[in-house]
Amino acid sequence: MNKITIFDSTLRDGAQAEGVSFSVEDKIKVALALDELGVSYIEAGNPGSNPKDLEFFERIKDIEFKNTTIAAFGSTRRRGISPSEDSNLQALLGAGTKAVAIFGKSWDFHVTDIINTTLQENLEMIYDTIAYLKEQDKYVVFDAEHFFDGYKENPDYAMKTLDAASQAGADCLCLCDTNGGTFPQEISEITKKVVDRFAVTVGVHCHNDCGMAVANSVMAVLAGATHVQGVMTGFGERCGNTNLSTVIPNLQCKLGYECIAEENISKLTHTARKVSEIANLQLSIREPYVGKCAFAHKGGMHVDGVCKNSRSFEHIDPSVVGNERRFLTSEVAGRTTILSAMQRIIPGVEKNSPETTIVIDKLKELEYEGYQFEGADGAFELLIRKTLGKYKPFFELENFKIIGEHPPYASGQTASAVIKIKVDGKSEITAAEGDGPVNALDKALRKALEVFYPNLSDVHLTDYKVRVLDGNSATASKVRVLIESSDGPDNWTTVGVSSDIIEASWIALVDSLEYKLIKDIEQKFKTFL
Amino acid sequence: MNKITIFDSTLRDGAQAEGVSFSVEDKIKVALALDELGVSYIEAGNPGSNPKDLEFFERIKDIEFKNTTIAAFGSTRRRGISPSEDSNLQALLGAGTKAVAIFGKSWDFHVTDIINTTLQENLEMIYDTIAYLKEQDKYVVFDAEHFFDGYKENPDYAMKTLDAASQAGADCLCLCDTNGGTFPQEISEITKKVVDRFAVTVGVHCHNDCGMAVANSVMAVLAGATHVQGVMTGFGERCGNTNLSTVIPNLQCKLGYECIAEENISKLTHTARKVSEIANLQLSIREPYVGKCAFAHKGGMHVDGVCKNSRSFEHIDPSVVGNERRFLTSEVAGRTTILSAMQRIIPGVEKNSPETTIVIDKLKELEYEGYQFEGADGAFELLIRKTLGKYKPFFELENFKIIGEHPPYASGQTASAVIKIKVDGKSEITAAEGDGPVNALDKALRKALEVFYPNLSDVHLTDYKVRVLDGNSATASKVRVLIESSDGPDNWTTVGVSSDIIEASWIALVDSLEYKLIKDIEQKFKTFL
Repeated sequence: MNKITIFDSTLRDGAQAEGVSFSVEDKIKVALALDELGVSYIEAGNPGSNPKDLEFFERIKDIEFKNTTIAAFGSTRRRGISPSEDSNLQALLGAGTKAVAIFGKSWDFHVTDIINTTLQENLEMIYDTIAYLKEQDKYVVFDAEHFFDGYKENPDYAMKTLDAASQAGADCLCLCDTNGGTFPQEISEITKKVVDRFAVTVGVHCHNDCGMAVANSVMAVLAGATHVQGVMTGFGERCGNTNLSTVIPNLQCKLGYECIAEENISKLTHTARKVSEIANLQLSIREPYVGKCAFAHKGGMHVDGVCKNSRSFEHIDPSVVGNERRFLTSEVAGRTTILSAMQRIIPGVEKNSPETTIVIDKLKELEYEGYQFEGADGAFELLIRKTLGKYKPFFELENFKIIGEHPPYASGQTASAVIKIKVDGKSEITAAEGDGPVNALDKALRKALEVFYPNLSDVHLTDYKVRVLDGNSATASKVRVLIESSDGPDNWTTVGVSSDIIEASWIALVDSLEYKLIKDIEQKFKTFL
Repeated sequence: MNKITIFDSTLRDGAQAEGVSFSVEDKIKVALALDELGVSYIEAGNPGSNPKDLEFFERIKDIEFKNTTIAAFGSTRRRGISPSEDSNLQALLGAGTKAVAIFGKSWDFHVTDIINTTLQENLEMIYDTIAYLKEQDKYVVFDAEHFFDGYKENPDYAMKTLDAASQAGADCLCLCDTNGGTFPQEISEITKKVVDRFAVTVGVHCHNDCGMAVANSVMAVLAGATHVQGVMTGFGERCGNTNLSTVIPNLQCKLGYECIAEENISKLTHTARKVSEIANLQLSIREPYVGKCAFAHKGGMHVDGVCKNSRSFEHIDPSVVGNERRFLTSEVAGRTTILSAMQRIIPGVEKNSPETTIVIDKLKELEYEGYQFEGADGAFELLIRKTLGKYKPFFELENFKIIGEHPPYASGQTASAVIKIKVDGKSEITAAEGDGPVNALDKALRKALEVFYPNLSDVHLTDYKVRVLDGNSATASKVRVLIESSDGPDNWTTVGVSSDIIEASWIALVDSLEYKLIKDIEQKFKTFL
C-alpha cells in the first residue's frame, strides 16, 4: 500500500481563517484530536509572527503524542543577514520541534516585486535557511510558495528554487498553490515534472479559491506526490485549504493509499466534528463524508433504492468514515454508536432491544430541537438514564430569579441570583452575586446544593461554549450551551438548548452536577464490591 | 469563444437539499434572478412527483424570460405501458415547457436490482419516452443516471443507453455522476469516449460527495462536454451538486469558455447571495468567488503583498465576479489594512500620520481585551470615529435592569428589561419582555430610542454570535458577541466583549444602532450636496 504523509495545518493555515481564533487550550485539544486520528505531522504555528504560539510549544513539550510529529512554521531568512542573525528563525528554533516547514518564494514576480530582492539572493535565502536548519538536525519541509503560478510564468526559475532547497538537504519539497487558482490538469502535469526530477519526497499544498483544492491534491498524488497538506474540515485563509476530512477518505478509501492507520478511518467524522466544535465553526451539513447530510436521503426514489441496496445511491458505506445514514422522510437511524454508550449503563442491551428504540426516539426528538450529543458524553449518559428510568433527580428546583444591573453593584458585579431548591423535603434558599447572569446562577445553585452534597465543591467548570443555532431571529435565536466540567481525575461535557441563554445554561449546569453525583455513587459502590 | 450551455437545477435538484423548501413565490424569485444572470436553462421541478410544481409552471407562463428557457424534469415511462399512458409523463407535458429533462437508468445494476426490469426493456423505455417527447416538439435532455458508475461496471450497456436516447432524437446526452463517487481523471477519460462517439451535445451533472463536483465538471468540459448542470451555490441531495457560482467563473474567467453573457459575470456574487437568501441558507463565508471571505486577507504578509500588487495573493480581480477585497483587522495584520479603513473616514490620512498611530494603539488595547474587528466593519468604523473625536453619542444610558425568571411569566417569556435613556436632555423610560435577557434588553432599547429616531425601525438583527474567549473561568469567562444588522440595502457587523454576556451584547447593540444613525446622516448630507 502506498503511504501518503498527511501534514495537517489546522493550527497554522487554519488559524488564518476569518472567525477562527484559537486559545492555547484550544490548540492543545486540536492537536490531541489529530494525533488520535493519526496524522503524521501537525504544523502548529508560526513562532516568528505570533509570539503567543511559543506558549503552546512550551506546553506541548510535556505531551507524548502517539502518532504525530509537531512542526513549527517559518520563512526563509531575511535578505542581507545570515540565518543565525534572523530573529524569526531563532523564534522558530525556540519552539523546539523535531520538524519545521519553511516557506520561500518560487514565483519570480514575488521575488522582485513583493520582497524586493534579486532572483539570485532568493535562491541563497532558501539554500542558507534550509542548510542551517539541517545542521540543527530538523526534518525540513520546503513550502515552495506560489510554485504553480511561478512555474507557469517562469518554469526554469521555479525549478531552481526547488534545486536550492533540495541541495540544502530539504526532506520534502512541497508545491503550494498559494492563490488557489491552478486547475487539476495543470497540477497534474506540473507535479509530474517535479516528481520526475527529484528523488526526495514531493508534497502538495492547495487552496480552495476555485473550489478544487481536494481534486487538485488528488491529481497531485496521482502524479506522484506523497505528502499532502491541508486543514481538518478545510477552513483557512480566504476560501480555505485542502479539506483533510475529504481528501483522506478520497485517497485511502477510494484510491487505496494509506494516509492514516486503517483502523482510524472510522474516527474521521468524530474528529472533523470535534475540531469544528473547538474552532467554534459550524460544520456544513453538506460536508462530504463527515457532514450530517453526507448520507441523508430525501428523494423518495433514493430512499427506496438505498433500502434495496445501499450502493444504489451511496458512493461508500457511511460507517467506514464513522458517519451514519439518515432517511429524511422515514427515519431509520444507525444504532451502533448509541448501543455502545447504552451498554456501559445496561450491560447486555442489544441492537434490537426495546430500550434501544426508546433511546433512539428520544435522541431524534432532542436532535430536532437542536441538541447535539457529539462529544457531550456526560449529557448523553444522563439522557440514557433518564429515558430508561435509571435516574432519580437529586433536587427539585422551586424557582430562581436573576437580576442584571447597569450600572453594576458597588462590588463591581453585574448580576445577582436568588434560588430556592428542595432536597428530600428540606428547602434551601440562597443567593449569589456574579459576573453576568449565568455566573450568578451557577454560584447560587452550587451554594444551595453543597449544603446537601459537599462533594460538589470538587467540581469546577473548565469550559463554557455558546453556539447560536439559527441566525434568523437574531437575539431570540436558539442557543446551544456546552459546559465542560472537571473534578480533577475526570472531565465531562453537558449540553443545554433553549432560546433563552440562561435556561440553556441551567440545563447544562444541572446535568453537569448530577453527572458528578451519579459518578461518585457508582465509585463508592464499586469500592464497596 | 466556445459556448457552454448552463443548465441550472437549483429549483429541482437544489430543492432536494435538507433544509430547503421553496414556496411557489420563492421559485419565481429564484427563476427571475437566474434569468437576470443569464443561464440558458432552468430546470424548475418534477411535476410527476411533486404536483405542487404545476402551480409554479402555470404561474410562469405569463412571465417573459430574457435569457433562459424553462425545463421540466421527469423520468422514462414506467415499464409495460406506453408513454401516452404514463401519468407522470402526462404531468410533465402539463407543465407546458419548451424543454424537458428525462432521466433514465444507465447502470445495469440499477435496471435489474432497483427498478426490476430487463436490460432490453430499459433501453426501450428510454427510446420510447424520448421519441414521444420529440413528437411533441420538446427540446429533450437525456439525464443518463449513474452513467459513470454504470460505465465502470458495464461500459457496453452504459453506451447502449446513450445510443437509445440519441437514436430517439435526444438533443443532449447528459452524463450523471449521481452518487458523486467518480474521480476527475475518470470523468475526463469516460466523457472523452462519449464525445468521440456522438455528434450530439454532451453534458455533465455531478454531485459533491467526494468534494470534487466542480473539478469533475471542469474536467468533463476539457474532455469535450458543452452542457453543464448544477445548482447556484451548490446545495442539493446529500453533499449537493456542482456549484454553478464556482464552475461558471472557472470556465469563463479562467478557461475562456462562454457560459453566460460576458457583461453578466459581475452579477455572480449578487445572484449567489440572493439565491441563498431566498433558499434561507447561510452562504458559507469561504465560498469560492462569491463568499464574504473569498478575497479577505488576514495574514500580514498577504495584506502587504496585495497592497503592492493584488495578483500576489489573488487569483482573479474580485470585481470581475462582483465581489470585493477585504483586509481583516487582526493582530497579524499590519498598518495597511487599518489605513484603508481610515481613509474612508478621513481622506488623505497617511501610513505615518499621528492619527494612524493613535488608532493602532487603541486597536491593540482592545484586541488585548478580546475584541476582534475582522469582519466587524461597522464596529471598526465607530472605533476610528470615537478614537479620533469624529463621534458624538446619540443618547445617554441612565440605567437598565434585567430580570430573568424561572418559572417563566404567564406570557411564556422568561425575562423583562427596564431601561432609562436621555436624548438632548429629554428622558425616556420604558420596558419590554423577551425570550431571554438579551432579547428583552434589545427590545427595550429600541423601543426607547425609536421615540427619538424613528428610522431605527428599519434595522433588524440578522445574526447574533457568541464566542467564549477563554475556558479557564468557565461561566465567568469573557465572551465576545458579534451582531450583524441590516436595514435592507446595507449590512454591518458590530462587536462587544465582556465577562457579562449582557454587557457584551449591549455594547454591540448600541454600536449597531449608532452606526445606522451615522450612516443615515451621511446619506442625507450626500443627497444635500
